[in-house]
Amino acid sequence: MVAFRGDEPADEMRAEGGDLSCLDAFVRKHDFRRGIVGTVRNLTPKEEEALARLSFPLLRFSPDTPVPITNRYRSPETLGSDRLAAVIGASSLRPGKDLLIIDAGTCITYEVIDARGNYWGGNIAPGMQMRLRALHEFTARLPLVEAEGEVPGMGYDTETAIRSGVLRGMKYEIEGYIKSMMAKFPHLEVFLTGGNRINFDTNIINLIFTDKYIVPRGLNKILDYNRPPDPL
Amino acid sequence: MVAFRGDEPADEMRAEGGDLSCLDAFVRKHDFRRGIVGTVRNLTPKEEEALARLSFPLLRFSPDTPVPITNRYRSPETLGSDRLAAVIGASSLRPGKDLLIIDAGTCITYEVIDARGNYWGGNIAPGMQMRLRALHEFTARLPLVEAEGEVPGMGYDTETAIRSGVLRGMKYEIEGYIKSMMAKFPHLEVFLTGGNRINFDTNIINLIFTDKYIVPRGLNKILDYNRPPDPL
Repeated sequence: MVAFRGDEPADEMRAEGGDLSCLDAFVRKHDFRRGIVGTVRNLTPKEEEALARLSFPLLRFSPDTPVPITNRYRSPETLGSDRLAAVIGASSLRPGKDLLIIDAGTCITYEVIDARGNYWGGNIAPGMQMRLRALHEFTARLPLVEAEGEVPGMGYDTETAIRSGVLRGMKYEIEGYIKSMMAKFPHLEVFLTGGNRINFDTNIINLIFTDKYIVPRGLNKILDYNRPPDPL
Repeated sequence: MVAFRGDEPADEMRAEGGDLSCLDAFVRKHDFRRGIVGTVRNLTPKEEEALARLSFPLLRFSPDTPVPITNRYRSPETLGSDRLAAVIGASSLRPGKDLLIIDAGTCITYEVIDARGNYWGGNIAPGMQMRLRALHEFTARLPLVEAEGEVPGMGYDTETAIRSGVLRGMKYEIEGYIKSMMAKFPHLEVFLTGGNRINFDTNIINLIFTDKYIVPRGLNKILDYNRPPDPL
């Protein structure tokens, strides 16, 4: 949960594992005018109850919600609300720019929005923990390796082979996207967000922004865009 | 199972799902002098019985088996026999060269052996099917996507976002390894093997060999290296 004052994040609270018991306290702390909910899963009955108790209007971000960019994704109804919110958040910070938005969390998503505000689509790849877990769970003999630890160029034992394999692979993947997009958009700017440390060669592009609030910023923009007109 | 005559593969038979019932027929068809078994899992009692019926000597490739390269991996006892066999197989085809061996199957493995025959280690990353499966099984809403199908630069729906995300990520990952290794070894040669179609920009390096028998070639070399001296 992130509280916004105007266009800027003012406060935040983490609801671990979908536990919204802290929501009441967060709401009492701030004088919210309105709210927006974006989720990539169905809410539990308990979560719905907590939201029903709110005393201000709540917008549920859905594929039908009007947004301040041109969504050219061919199946907007299946586009994760987090992906679209990230695009809108980045675009609100750098309007009129060609943007590549890389969100490295559970999955790594790559999204492209051009300088005219057209969102064309994006890609989804497994995130860091997902890769580490897959190597363990989908093979008979590979252990579950922690992301923290030594990362040699080439692994010298099973643990470093897996850690370097996953982290180095992600690094090359991210560098590959940046270079490939720069070939299409010479003035490309890159946004990085998401929970995972992203390690890559920052010399390949000058304009890199990291902002952990890109998704909340996008939701805030959508809320603003759908705000009813003030009474006369 | 691959039958070798001297240094070359002469015949092969696939034992689907570890079903060795076809082993007897394969053995009757050829006049084998000796055999070698390399496996990354424990054999079942049934498989052990099938091997026990063989009438020629069988070498079981283990971390203690002498090999014709210098293994500088720090924990050779945990090095998958397939990875070491791939290195030995490639090295037997291009002796005296700096080699990067990329094996794209269940996992993607990257191995480096230098021109003097030193194997230094390698990395392990999830293979194509593993990435597709992880995106489905480790998330609530993403579908299981087939590898076959359209691969746009950026996905325009969930299916193409996942397929392009996985395949394009692998392409950039592989290109990243090749470029990074070429910076260390200017005369690098690259071997590609494994079951998965690998798609990458082949303009980045001239010397690429594809050989689906690199692992069997390696096992054959190891068998040859451990052959008892002929009687006088």
